[in-house]
Formats: sequence, C-alpha cells, structure tokens
Amino acid sequence: MKAKIIITPKKAVLDPQGQTVERALAHMGYTGVGHVHVGKYLEIEVTGDKETVRRQLDEACHKFLSNPVIEDYKLEIVD
Amino acid sequence: MKAKIIITPKKAVLDPQGQTVERALAHMGYTGVGHVHVGKYLEIEVTGDKETVRRQLDEACHKFLSNPVIEDYKLEIVD
Repeated sequence: MKAKIIITPKKAVLDPQGQTVERALAHMGYTGVGHVHVGKYLEIEVTGDKETVRRQLDEACHKFLSNPVIEDYKLEIVD
Repeated sequence: MKAKIIITPKKAVLDPQGQTVERALAHMGYTGVGHVHVGKYLEIEVTGDKETVRRQLDEACHKFLSNPVIEDYKLEIVD
C-alpha cells in the first residue's frame, strides 16, 4: 500500500514559490497560465490495516508533517 | 481548468528529505511505515485548449519546472 500526501499553503497565505513560478512561466512566454500554488508531495510505503494506517498518518500529518496553521493537507491511501 | 504536477526524485537518486521523514516517523513510534519519497507539488490554473495546455506544460516541466536528470514528473489536467 502507498499513502500519498499533498501539502499546500492555505489560499490566504502568501506563496512566494508559487508567485515565482507564475512569473517565470509568463516570462517564458507561456500564455493561459493563472495562479500557481506550490506545495509538497509525500509518498509513503505502508503496511497493515488500511484504516489504522489512515488514522495514524492523519495524526502524523496534523502533528508534524504539515503546519495546520498555514497549510492544508490531503491524504490518500492506494493499494 | 487546473493542471496538477507532481515532481519526485528518481528512485536511484538519494532522497535525504524522504529519509529524514522516514526516520522521524519511526522515531515518533509509527509502525508499518516503509520508504518515504518527498517531492514537489504544483497546482496551476490554466485556460485555453486542453491539448495545447498539456503540450505547453509538458514542455515547461521538461525545461525548467523539473530537472529530468534526477527527477520524474507526472502532469495531470483536470476540469
């Protein structure tokens, strides 16, 4: 099993990395490109009961993989 | 439309961030956790023809959003 976690800055939080990519794309001549958000991606190989794993990782995400004050996370577990 | 890009280090490349998260999870008492890979996640708001956008972003990924020597990327465009 694999857990896939996507951590993104909350919409209200400044995202300088995203703004930089946005400007860079515009500068390189790519049209039709709007806002860019840059986040982190974690892929974790896991074993055990799916629901237990989900609960544990959800706790880990909340406690130390993300900063819930400024970031949102999305946890998905795939077989 | 939104483009979602996931950039991960190639399997053969050292991933110190992933190793750190892996050790941290084990240290915090989470069991059943195997290898961890840490990558980047980009969400880009796009407009225009889907196929044109895909071609453009694929080129951008290859040219400067990722480093094809050490990284893989996955591009997905959703409505």
